[in-house]
Amino acid sequence: MLAADLNELVTRVGPGTEMGGLLRRYWLPALLSSEVPEPDGPPVRVRMLGEDLVAFRDSTGQVGLIDAYCPHRRAPMFFGRNEEAGLRCVYHGWKFDVGGNCVDLPSEPPGSLFRQKINIDAYMTWEGGGLVWAYLGPRAEAPPPPDYEWLRSPATHRRVSKTLEHANYLQALEGGIDTAHSSFVHNNEIDNPSRLKSIDVHPKLEVEKTAYGFRYAGIRRIGDNRQYVRAYHFLMPAMQMRAAMLDKEGEPRKLPSLRGHIWVPVDDEWTLVYNWICSIDPEKEISDEVWRKHEQAAGRGEDDYIPGSYRLKRNLSNDYFVDRELQRTKTYTGITGLNTQDYAVQEGMGPIVDRSKEHLGSSDKAIIAARRMLLEALRTIKEGRPPAGSDPATSRGVRPAEAIIKESERWQDAMADLLEARW
Amino acid sequence: MLAADLNELVTRVGPGTEMGGLLRRYWLPALLSSEVPEPDGPPVRVRMLGEDLVAFRDSTGQVGLIDAYCPHRRAPMFFGRNEEAGLRCVYHGWKFDVGGNCVDLPSEPPGSLFRQKINIDAYMTWEGGGLVWAYLGPRAEAPPPPDYEWLRSPATHRRVSKTLEHANYLQALEGGIDTAHSSFVHNNEIDNPSRLKSIDVHPKLEVEKTAYGFRYAGIRRIGDNRQYVRAYHFLMPAMQMRAAMLDKEGEPRKLPSLRGHIWVPVDDEWTLVYNWICSIDPEKEISDEVWRKHEQAAGRGEDDYIPGSYRLKRNLSNDYFVDRELQRTKTYTGITGLNTQDYAVQEGMGPIVDRSKEHLGSSDKAIIAARRMLLEALRTIKEGRPPAGSDPATSRGVRPAEAIIKESERWQDAMADLLEARW
Amino acid sequence: MLAADLNELVTRVGPGTEMGGLLRRYWLPALLSSEVPEPDGPPVRVRMLGEDLVAFRDSTGQVGLIDAYCPHRRAPMFFGRNEEAGLRCVYHGWKFDVGGNCVDLPSEPPGSLFRQKINIDAYMTWEGGGLVWAYLGPRAEAPPPPDYEWLRSPATHRRVSKTLEHANYLQALEGGIDTAHSSFVHNNEIDNPSRLKSIDVHPKLEVEKTAYGFRYAGIRRIGDNRQYVRAYHFLMPAMQMRAAMLDKEGEPRKLPSLRGHIWVPVDDEWTLVYNWICSIDPEKEISDEVWRKHEQAAGRGEDDYIPGSYRLKRNLSNDYFVDRELQRTKTYTGITGLNTQDYAVQEGMGPIVDRSKEHLGSSDKAIIAARRMLLEALRTIKEGRPPAGSDPATSRGVRPAEAIIKESERWQDAMADLLEARW
Repeated sequence: MLAADLNELVTRVGPGTEMGGLLRRYWLPALLSSEVPEPDGPPVRVRMLGEDLVAFRDSTGQVGLIDAYCPHRRAPMFFGRNEEAGLRCVYHGWKFDVGGNCVDLPSEPPGSLFRQKINIDAYMTWEGGGLVWAYLGPRAEAPPPPDYEWLRSPATHRRVSKTLEHANYLQALEGGIDTAHSSFVHNNEIDNPSRLKSIDVHPKLEVEKTAYGFRYAGIRRIGDNRQYVRAYHFLMPAMQMRAAMLDKEGEPRKLPSLRGHIWVPVDDEWTLVYNWICSIDPEKEISDEVWRKHEQAAGRGEDDYIPGSYRLKRNLSNDYFVDRELQRTKTYTGITGLNTQDYAVQEGMGPIVDRSKEHLGSSDKAIIAARRMLLEALRTIKEGRPPAGSDPATSRGVRPAEAIIKESERWQDAMADLLEARW
Repeated sequence: MLAADLNELVTRVGPGTEMGGLLRRYWLPALLSSEVPEPDGPPVRVRMLGEDLVAFRDSTGQVGLIDAYCPHRRAPMFFGRNEEAGLRCVYHGWKFDVGGNCVDLPSEPPGSLFRQKINIDAYMTWEGGGLVWAYLGPRAEAPPPPDYEWLRSPATHRRVSKTLEHANYLQALEGGIDTAHSSFVHNNEIDNPSRLKSIDVHPKLEVEKTAYGFRYAGIRRIGDNRQYVRAYHFLMPAMQMRAAMLDKEGEPRKLPSLRGHIWVPVDDEWTLVYNWICSIDPEKEISDEVWRKHEQAAGRGEDDYIPGSYRLKRNLSNDYFVDRELQRTKTYTGITGLNTQDYAVQEGMGPIVDRSKEHLGSSDKAIIAARRMLLEALRTIKEGRPPAGSDPATSRGVRPAEAIIKESERWQDAMADLLEARW
Repeated sequence: MLAADLNELVTRVGPGTEMGGLLRRYWLPALLSSEVPEPDGPPVRVRMLGEDLVAFRDSTGQVGLIDAYCPHRRAPMFFGRNEEAGLRCVYHGWKFDVGGNCVDLPSEPPGSLFRQKINIDAYMTWEGGGLVWAYLGPRAEAPPPPDYEWLRSPATHRRVSKTLEHANYLQALEGGIDTAHSSFVHNNEIDNPSRLKSIDVHPKLEVEKTAYGFRYAGIRRIGDNRQYVRAYHFLMPAMQMRAAMLDKEGEPRKLPSLRGHIWVPVDDEWTLVYNWICSIDPEKEISDEVWRKHEQAAGRGEDDYIPGSYRLKRNLSNDYFVDRELQRTKTYTGITGLNTQDYAVQEGMGPIVDRSKEHLGSSDKAIIAARRMLLEALRTIKEGRPPAGSDPATSRGVRPAEAIIKESERWQDAMADLLEARW
């Protein structure tokens, strides 16, 4: 349960809000690198943290992220001309470079000093992992760019996609870090008793605070004195990492991988979910075919999107194409697509869930921990210190893991080796 | 005329509002029984009085009406699994019976007492007349379920449908109890001088207060010292009953029937209109054919609805397919469908009409009486007494009627026999 | 730059607002005469200055402009029957003439005096130039109807159209009176160096205040000691006149014409733009063919509108069908249609631009002058005097012009003859 005023505090992210201020102290994905594939190509709209921006790749290959509106009379920079080393507003030809400097102002007479007084708001950007990351906070406080293991892996070994979700970032994040729900909403074989997550549907949850957020494990007793452990990381402010080492019945996967989501607020009611995957086996690339199947299983196949958008065809307006007969006989939800199932429960709460009406149980430990950590970080920055996890050094060595170990073992010890970054 | 503050008072129906409090003291239709045809079938969304609910028929055939959101983390119960004697949330498997009790909570370890602290908001339901009725008020104050004559008639002799209207319930109700408008908006033969309602277009209105609301008559002088009397009932808080005994030129109908509407607020701006008909001749059932034609004439034929909804294709966004040539030459409105004509004038006012700008005449007596009665009932419940008409005993013997009588007769006497319930 | 409170002041136009009060002191176009082509034809919805109205042409040919809602119970007059000398509400048959008088009230008994107490709000109308003009202010203050030159030209020599724009009237107006933007946003031949407006892209702007608003000139040096002068008028409160005498390379046009826009607020966020053209050569009519091509070039050809509306198919929701390849190689914007290019920059700012964030340069002189004049007129009416330009005598002799003159000449002198109305 979260009182109404705290719920407001943690969910509002626009300019001038407290949580918006905290999120602006981290590097966050702003768009896929592939959205601005070529120098001097068309600019792209970006909306994040309630701000309307425009991204463009300049002649040198650098990505600019600037105010969506020209400082002259607020014409839309989206219709701008991406010319030699700058984006030019089509209204009166004012041109700005990636740093926000006005580099040409042809509507004023030659010799005018007016241009020197003009600039457009521009944010710091950095590219890595197929993403353009942006820092929207005070420049003086900017930490070094991210250094997660998957960002260091070869480009051949990782992939990333993005999906638009109609829910507040925290609601999406809480669904993502929840481990207990896999036993229910993602149970696509209601008649399969050997499915690991169906053997024990009330996993024990252990949470350990760290410098970057916390690591936590969902522990299921699966018989024969064995326990099935999924060890995750929550990385401030809004990332989860998990591992896919075993198949659903506990056998080793052919292509073991790390996976994760980053939940970036578009505004208070919409979230862009960045989905990444990274092979941990140097011998095994993520091929086009593997990636295509992975995304299809998640419900994010190429044909699952509304063309020209990052919104899924299966959404709340059409009840996610729920098939009640399928639900009755084969799968828990009757909804196809693993993440589509997540969206159904997350978006189905309404865009900003009323946490004053919830009743949390022992399965919600990680969620409670994440909320506390976000609230604590609000205090940290008020005290003038950098918030937890903003320093990339805290998370560079982190790796999630998944294993079956003996009941007598502590996962922290038995899986220590697996939990270290190798890329 | 109703001052702006009184207009607010009578039109706002959500939780915590005064009028919402009054409406919650009555049994109201929540859905058609046919929407939940089978035990353990798919749950159905219900929105009434500004509350989001979910209905489901459990294994025993009882209909549950519960909060649309799981008390755990507010996942949508609509996607729930309707299993043995309860609806189960797909997020973490929490299961609730029709009484709102949590009967299974599998995400907590066995032995946990947590389940006993959990329940979901659930409302009382009762089925009758092809409808699932619900009582959304304080349980201690719940009156016995409705006992209108048409609810007692054989199922073969009655039918019911529902239509979604984009207008506040009171606006729809006022349109329904208005008798004078039949001479105009429903005049589909502008060249037929022998149409009873065209002979006298300014009916005299008589209103008599009763324990359940009021009965009232629209009296038209039709020549030869005769008067054409339509005697109606307004039943608190939002039902009208009328009779169809004569055809439009005054001849006895082959299938005399009672008819009525119940206007149930979805929220402040939308209303579900339940339309019922009931044959009063024990020898004459309402056949599929009769019902089909009846609904078509009303503009509610099967093909008149937007598929998968209770909204009509002919609506304000397309000007109800008004045909100006038809209007010029044949019908008063150029709009097809008797109730579609009603919606055109009711929805055309905007969702909540500004009653401070109206000018009521002598044709509006019944409307004024209904408003007064609703306002009076607000006072009644404040004084701790049950509101008018909540006791079904007050309305069980009621029947509307329609007849041509002598001008010298009082309708109360001449039609006394017709005005008594026989089912 | 305009402080936030002043921006509010100049952009809000509904009943009761200051700027709404000022705009109501002028005659403004309410609809095209062709929208109500025949006596007793169907009524038409009109929304202007935030008020919902209905227009109808009565049996005598006069156009009534009345409240959209019947004073009885606020039924929509749009569905009314336009009968002999009045519009009749279909709900209960109340009928009103163009003056707003209730001329029939059939739902009350004969002899009732009720009708004499009833009227509907009605505004003054006047027809001219293919438009129905309306005066929405206090009747006692109504000025004589407009008397612009183009209204006096033969009907064969002028045309008018209208387009719905999703932007505040002032934003549209400011885009219209801006002369510098032609060098950029309307440059459809980025490779043509002999285009007059491309030779000098920072025209000198001169503004001269007048009794009707101001006249202003955009002056471009084009070499050989010549200057290219476009002399415009801004006519209070929201009209621009410009001349098309020369083609884009400075040669005389075959059909020299006057052109203009009137920006009429629908409400705060939408504007109806009336576009007119008027031949100044008595020998040359505006033929259907000329008009068709003119509208097509503007992006307002018959096929450019969403059927049944005044909204263009190319709009913000589809990025005006921008063609980035065309933009890269041929035209400045990649958007087709001269006025569509205007809408892209005007609507792209959002419906009400935040003027507190703008940075005006020397090219914005006319825009600054228009804002000042509107603010000044607010003070004028507060002092009980008629606002600038409301008297048609101030603008009857006005004509815009375009010419190439010597650099040594003053345009006011050299073009004096051209600047006088001849119709």
